[in-house]
Amino acid sequence: MTDSIAHQQQLYVADGLSDEEIAQQADLYGPLTDSVRELIEIALLTEVDDPEVRAAMEHIESAKQLLRKQMIPGPYGVRWGASGQKRAWGNAAAGLRNAIAPPLVIDCDPDGRASTDFHLGSAYEGPAGLTHGGVSALVLDQVLGAAAEAGGAPGMTGTLTLRYRRPTPLGALHAEARIDRLEGVKTIVVGHLAGPDGVCVEAEGVFILPRWVRDRNSATVSDPV
Amino acid sequence: MTDSIAHQQQLYVADGLSDEEIAQQADLYGPLTDSVRELIEIALLTEVDDPEVRAAMEHIESAKQLLRKQMIPGPYGVRWGASGQKRAWGNAAAGLRNAIAPPLVIDCDPDGRASTDFHLGSAYEGPAGLTHGGVSALVLDQVLGAAAEAGGAPGMTGTLTLRYRRPTPLGALHAEARIDRLEGVKTIVVGHLAGPDGVCVEAEGVFILPRWVRDRNSATVSDPV
Repeated sequence: MTDSIAHQQQLYVADGLSDEEIAQQADLYGPLTDSVRELIEIALLTEVDDPEVRAAMEHIESAKQLLRKQMIPGPYGVRWGASGQKRAWGNAAAGLRNAIAPPLVIDCDPDGRASTDFHLGSAYEGPAGLTHGGVSALVLDQVLGAAAEAGGAPGMTGTLTLRYRRPTPLGALHAEARIDRLEGVKTIVVGHLAGPDGVCVEAEGVFILPRWVRDRNSATVSDPV
Repeated sequence: MTDSIAHQQQLYVADGLSDEEIAQQADLYGPLTDSVRELIEIALLTEVDDPEVRAAMEHIESAKQLLRKQMIPGPYGVRWGASGQKRAWGNAAAGLRNAIAPPLVIDCDPDGRASTDFHLGSAYEGPAGLTHGGVSALVLDQVLGAAAEAGGAPGMTGTLTLRYRRPTPLGALHAEARIDRLEGVKTIVVGHLAGPDGVCVEAEGVFILPRWVRDRNSATVSDPV
């Protein structure tokens, strides 16, 4: 357990990249991720026969050989550049470099609000033709957490409660969240996910302030500068 | 709305495939999906430069061109073969043909229990080095739903409540669920997700019986054969 905590701390990395270097990386690896994301859906829906599948797999193998030549050991972790710009590019919901992520691009407001418009294709299916209930949970966990962080109360998810009001279609969707109240070390955030016909899933999340934020806050109170 | 319901019903398909034909499809498309799944992680972690990225993207594009030659329109839907074998191969958590899915392979027991051992790699990250809280929700929604269905009470998720007891590592994980009780049209299922150090996330889900199951059940009561 001590080893795994030490390893986890190594994954919060201040790598000192300039904003320009970060933009270059985004321009290089963003389109690669988009290309893989499209491949996920095509591989799910293809009906071609054995020879085409084999030929396609050879191309995918060649792509992997090229990309494997230099890799970070993984997972990606959370990185900060010289200007303090945060990169959670491996994040399963919002990571720029993660083809599993839709990815969510979340607008945040420092009063503790967050919202996102996004699109879910065939790869996010649960019940036939509908968004998987767990994918709705993934989206809402990310958006509620972003609202808590935007409002100055970042935290790990303590509890998450989801109420499914109507089936969530695939396609164009919207999610939003806001801090409802603070209770000690807990930040209570509410939000929802909506489709063209209205709200599909309502969510309430309790996020727990990590110790370093508590220490910072108590230092601010006892040692005003 | 009527159109979308009609479209959704078309995605529950009895396609009459024999078990042998289904096995052939699994042998053909399963390895393709595995190959794409591995590419997701390599594309996330690669640090190669512009020429290699461009060359890799050309190979990915060639693969897509081959696979696009014949496709179902999508989403995949839920299909049944001649023997009643169900294929939710597009499912975001458990779909054999969905590279987003880990995929979960769930053992089910007709007394209303389900369990799965699975592995989450770098593409499922949330907090640095840890499983995304929303991915834990995705896994638990699927496993709780499988327990309800295994016990003869399939349903859409009504509510899902998650309690995060400790950080969930990436790597080898286990999830299980069981039907706790029935209340009218509601099936209440409890479960958890555990890592090497014990339970990380506890879950309770309420699944609502769809009308066709209610009709079947009431017919069984009023018209015993």
